[in-house]
Order: sequence, then structure tokens, then C-alpha cells
Amino acid sequence: MEHIRLDIADGIATITLNRPGQLNAFTTIMENELIDAYERCDTDDNVRAVVLTGAGRAFCAGADLSAGADTFTEWQDEHPDNEMRRDGGGRVVLRMFESRKPIIAAINGPAVGVGITMTLAADFRLAADDARIGFVFNRRGLIPESCSSWFLPRLVPMQRALDWVYSGRLIDAAEAYESGLFYALHPKASVLDEALALARRITEHSAPVSVALSRELMWRMLGTDHPMFAHRAESRGINIRGVGPDAREGIAAFLEKRPASFPDRVSTDMPDLFGDDLPTHTFHA
Amino acid sequence: MEHIRLDIADGIATITLNRPGQLNAFTTIMENELIDAYERCDTDDNVRAVVLTGAGRAFCAGADLSAGADTFTEWQDEHPDNEMRRDGGGRVVLRMFESRKPIIAAINGPAVGVGITMTLAADFRLAADDARIGFVFNRRGLIPESCSSWFLPRLVPMQRALDWVYSGRLIDAAEAYESGLFYALHPKASVLDEALALARRITEHSAPVSVALSRELMWRMLGTDHPMFAHRAESRGINIRGVGPDAREGIAAFLEKRPASFPDRVSTDMPDLFGDDLPTHTFHA
Amino acid sequence: MEHIRLDIADGIATITLNRPGQLNAFTTIMENELIDAYERCDTDDNVRAVVLTGAGRAFCAGADLSAGADTFTEWQDEHPDNEMRRDGGGRVVLRMFESRKPIIAAINGPAVGVGITMTLAADFRLAADDARIGFVFNRRGLIPESCSSWFLPRLVPMQRALDWVYSGRLIDAAEAYESGLFYALHPKASVLDEALALARRITEHSAPVSVALSRELMWRMLGTDHPMFAHRAESRGINIRGVGPDAREGIAAFLEKRPASFPDRVSTDMPDLFGDDLPTHTFHA
Repeated sequence: MEHIRLDIADGIATITLNRPGQLNAFTTIMENELIDAYERCDTDDNVRAVVLTGAGRAFCAGADLSAGADTFTEWQDEHPDNEMRRDGGGRVVLRMFESRKPIIAAINGPAVGVGITMTLAADFRLAADDARIGFVFNRRGLIPESCSSWFLPRLVPMQRALDWVYSGRLIDAAEAYESGLFYALHPKASVLDEALALARRITEHSAPVSVALSRELMWRMLGTDHPMFAHRAESRGINIRGVGPDAREGIAAFLEKRPASFPDRVSTDMPDLFGDDLPTHTFHA
Repeated sequence: MEHIRLDIADGIATITLNRPGQLNAFTTIMENELIDAYERCDTDDNVRAVVLTGAGRAFCAGADLSAGADTFTEWQDEHPDNEMRRDGGGRVVLRMFESRKPIIAAINGPAVGVGITMTLAADFRLAADDARIGFVFNRRGLIPESCSSWFLPRLVPMQRALDWVYSGRLIDAAEAYESGLFYALHPKASVLDEALALARRITEHSAPVSVALSRELMWRMLGTDHPMFAHRAESRGINIRGVGPDAREGIAAFLEKRPASFPDRVSTDMPDLFGDDLPTHTFHA
Repeated sequence: MEHIRLDIADGIATITLNRPGQLNAFTTIMENELIDAYERCDTDDNVRAVVLTGAGRAFCAGADLSAGADTFTEWQDEHPDNEMRRDGGGRVVLRMFESRKPIIAAINGPAVGVGITMTLAADFRLAADDARIGFVFNRRGLIPESCSSWFLPRLVPMQRALDWVYSGRLIDAAEAYESGLFYALHPKASVLDEALALARRITEHSAPVSVALSRELMWRMLGTDHPMFAHRAESRGINIRGVGPDAREGIAAFLEKRPASFPDRVSTDMPDLFGDDLPTHTFHA
């Protein structure tokens, strides 16, 4: 891969935005490589969780503006056969939304524009205590992207989210933490290690298929308009999972006060909890 | 009733999970008795609010696992004539969602699995300051239930909710309070009294039908996708309630600086605010 | 105008509820004048943001109850040709929901009933540190209005929102601030100046059309059930805005480290980001 790295060790995949000379500025190559990397993590049962971080001193400086005022003209020209060019950050974020593995952003330095909005679909955001962020779109004559208009009001109080987006101002790590956007702050040198530790902590005692289904349930239900959608999906899930190998092992291990060893695999044993229940959301112009 | 108690005094119904020798572990009997108890509270105009608590030192230790690894096999066998066994906690929670009386959970001790998820549809959660909770499903090879995948992300910040559910770890009362899951902490000996006091405080000056309609409006609107749904329902409500006996008394009492005595009754005077406006959410496989 | 004032200066419109002798109590005249004022602000490109405040010592004492127990009978009689009288506060709030300019409520004193619910569709609520509020409807035999059943559970934690609405009690400014309803507290004498300063801060470096689109995106996406809705709208927006005059100027100014001067105008250059994507929400009985 050209603009990112993917390293898998000890059950955790680390995706590193890897253009340190350009402060990891976002490109179409990076967009496609990220989607590919999340895809690989989902199909590899050795991966229990994914950590996303940046090489060098920045996390991501935003869209690569080296083409200047022609940036988005060039960007559209790259896709001449599309009826409509889709927002690149949004494509990445929608792939993250479907991820079967928890995703932890280790924001090691400045994260601006798509650099911060691409982390909103992560499950957790840990940050260096000097990491500044900015939803700078309105200062460039653009608009919020990467589905940030959907995620941000669900992650921080509405008044705070509107202040950040309207103004496009830079926000220090303390304000982002107090507002609930960052789950924890750490010294810059340790934020990646802390993310790896969190990845282990949230997965080590849990059945992989249970974690994948929890992720799907929690994020999908965040939008639905009635708890009955949860009841249908959860009922299906309990009927299937409750009599399956994982639950038999999990309950036995609990009663025998020993660690569980779960046999089910995400790649092969994921039930469909939704059927035709939820509307299909696909892209169209 | 066999596995719960229902006591009504001074306008407040107290439902007590009542298997103290089994730490009030949840059973199918308890499931059906809880649904019945909430039904009775709704039809009894003497009941202004409902308090849910546990007998003995625990609130509820979760699903009764005394059948070991066969728990969910037996549980499914109890319902041979159903196409699909519905999640029992979800049935209880959906009945709470429809409650016409405010519900206050007085979490007097440990609340694990369905023991904590069944409280998420309560309006308030007061807890003993040593009450530990756990969304332990993933450690048993199961998945979140009782519609917790819908409620939890609406009650605590998403990062916190995902941490709790992915890991299945035990959470102390202080973390649950700081995250917003618990409304207040109290010494174990006084949590029930505090719940009764809150029940009185939120109902004593309010019209019973107004409280019931407020409950319906606030919980239903939490899911709808546009404020127009609220406007339609509220307009219907004001047109009916504004010229009715309760409002005439309420406004007169206010202007005369005296306590109001509201004549309308929940059992007989509840208008339909929604008509065909909202989609009907029913259970199907 | 009879019951409000509209003043425009330095790019900011100030709407003042202007019945100080009646503590700015809400009337049908005020309802229609507010809707008209928000309309004017949207069509005037000199207006970058709107501040809403009250004349005299109160913000708004709620619905004018000078007709006593006949208030809502008279209120319905004013609209004999309507199938159904629509909630007046709701009409105002739905107009605010569509506003193309950010709205800041400067709550200079008591705000009760519709006096507080009409501020929930504002982007920000700054308040005098002695401003008390009350969702008093249930104490009058009424129900929540002004779409507050939709907005309030999205602005403060559910337990807090239910406590306030069930009980109808008065709430001091500190509780409203700690719960997240107020964005900041200020001395009574300076709350209007602080609101004007915030209005400048959130608009001075941002493209007006970008701010208007951000407002539309963030509020509409707060209700939709899937981030794909954001992705569609944002993709349309970036395709149009990214190659337009504002972005060319914004990116050039950024690269040249100079202030931007955005040419696009809200009155003439607002693209449609939604098409037929979102359901149309109109009023019907």
C-alpha cells in the first residue's frame, strides 16, 4: 500500500496513515486503501480490533490541497465515469460503520478537516493531550463531510457541535475531551500504546461474534425510531446465539469459574439479525 | 404472584423482584408477572408512579442460569408453539415503554445482565452507592438484549456504552453515575425511600393525564426523524387538553395561587395524540 | 410590529420580545410576528446570525393567560376556519428549524412555558445567571408544546428532561447549565452582549452559504436513521460547493494566509442537498 500501512500483531490490526512528509494529508489513494484495509480486518479472524493512527507528528492534516483552488475540480475529474462523485471521507466512514471489529482512533497529533471527521465512525477516540482539531470546512467555503453531519450531533452536545462547525475554529484537546468527543487524553508518546491496551481490554474476555453483533446492533439502533427494531433483532440473535457453541461454552465457563474459549468465528458464524426489517440504505444521486 | 411483589401505598406502586435466595435471578415467571404488574399499575388511577426494586441484598443477578449450558435450550422449549421465542427482557421493556405512569428503578444492589438492561426503559435509575452493574452478555457468548441496543446509546455517551457492552466488564456505581446512567446515588439503606420521594416530587403538583401524555410524547419523539411529528401530536393534545376540565382547573388554580385538583383520569380521559401518524411497530420474525 | 422588535446592525439581527409590561407573555400576534421576522432574516444577506432576547427584566413569562380559564377556548376561536388549530409555539419553532441563519437565544430573565420551549430550536442558549425556567405545562393540566417533546430529549439527558417535564417545577440557571440546556451563563447585564459576540465569532471567518448548509445538515441529520442520508447530501454539497466560487476563494485564501472574501449569497446561491431523499414532513390533522 502506498499511503497507509497495515500491521497485524497480537490480535490487533494497526492502520497507520503514512504520508508523514505531508502530515498524512488525505488522498483518493488513501481513501481506497483505507476501505481495503477495513475489509481485510473484517475477513481476518486473527484481528479482534483495529487501531487507526498517523505516522510522524500529525494524525491527518485534512484533504491534500496541493492542487490549490483546483483541488476539487481535479478530484471530480478523477471520476469521469461516475454520474456523481461520492465524498471520499464518507465512503471510508460508511465502511467503518459496517466494520465487524471495534475501531479505536489513536489521534497522535493535529487532526483537521477529514482528519477528524474520518474518526467519528470509530468506536473510540483517544488523543494526545496536545492534539488540536478543526472542522474547518466553512472557512474554506465547503461543507461538513464524511457523514460528520450525522455523527457529530450524536457524539457531542448539539450546541458544541454547531459552534465547532459554524465557526471552523481550532479546538484544543481539553475542549474536545470535556465535550465528550475524546474518550481519554494521553501524552503524545503513549497514545498508541493506550489504544492497543484498550483494544485488548474490550475484547479479551468476549466472544468475537458477540462483539461483532454488539457493534452492528448498537450503531444501527442509534438511528431507528422505535425499540421494537432492537427487540426483533435481539430476539433473533438470542434464539440463534443462545443455543449455539459460544453460549454453551460461555455459560459453562462462567459456572465453572474458568476463562471461556469461544469456538465461533466472525468469518463464518455471523447470523443475520435484521432480515428485511431495516430499510436498505444505498447510495444514489 | 410468585417471583415478584406488588404493593400500592400513598399513590405509588412498588414492584419488588422477589427471589432473594437466588439474588432475584430473572425467570419466565418473573417476565410475565412484571408485564402483568405494569398493566395493573396503568389501569389503577390510584397509582401515580411505579418504583421497581429488589428484595434482599441484590437488585437482580441476571437470567437464572441454574440449567447451566442448557439454559436457552430449555427456555426455547417452553415456547414450542411460537414461530420464534421472543426475548423475555425485551417483552418487559416494551411494556414499560408503553407505561402511562413514570417508572423509577431503585437499584438497591448488584444488577447484572437483564438485571440492568430491564431498567433502561425506566424513566429514572437511582442506585445504591455500592451497586455494581454489568452488561455481561459478550462474556457468555450472547448478545445485548431487553432492547438495550436501542436504549443504552440514548442514555450514556456512545464511547462509554460501547466500552461496557464490548468488554462485558463490571462497572461500579460511580462510573455509572458519572456517565449519566444513574440519576443519583444514595446509601443502600435509603435508595428505596429516595425513589419514593422522587415519585412524589414528580407527580404531586401535576395532572395525571398530563404526566401520562408527557411520558408518551417524550419517549416516542426520542426516535422520530423530524419535529413535525411532535407538532402534530402536541397540536392535537393542546386542542383537546386546552379546553378540557384539567386545564380549566389548572389555569384557575394558578391565577388564584392555590393548589390544583385535577378531575381527569388516566383510565378514562386519555386522548389519542398520534392517530395514524406514527408507524405501527409490532413484533414479527 | 406590535409585540416584538427587529433590529439589524453589524450583520446581526436582534429580535426582542417586546411586551415588557406583561413580562413578554406570548400571544398569537407575537407568534405571527416571530415567523415573519425569521423569514425576513433569511432573505436579508446582511444578516449573518439572529439573536433572540426579551425587553425588560423577563425573557418570556409563557402564554398570555389574561383570559384565565378561557385562554385556550378563545385561542381556538381565533381560528374558526381551520380544521385544527396548530400549536402556536410549534409554528414558530418549525420556522426556526428551517432558518438559514444561526439563532442564539439570549435568555435575559425568567423563561417559562412557551418562553423556554420556543428557545429549544435555537442553536445556542446563553442565559442570565439568575434566569429561572420552567416546563410548567403539567401543573396547568396541559402538555409539552413547541415541539419540546422532540427537542428537549435531544438537548439534555433523558432523566433530567423527564424530571423537568413531569414535575413542572422551576429550575434555576445553574441546573439548566449543568444539564447542558444552557451553553453559558453570564451576568444579566451582559448576556445580550455575549450573544452578539458569539454571533460574530461563529460567522466572521465562515462562508455564509456554508453556514446555512451546515445548519440544515446538522439539524436534519439529527433525526435520520442512517449516515447514508448524510453521505448523499454531503456528496451533492461537495460536488457543487467544491468547484464553486466560495471554495476557490476559501482554499486560495488559506494557502495565501489571508482572510477570505466569499462571493456566494444565501439568497441566491443555496443548492438543494436533499432532493427527494428525505420524507416531506407537512402538517395534517
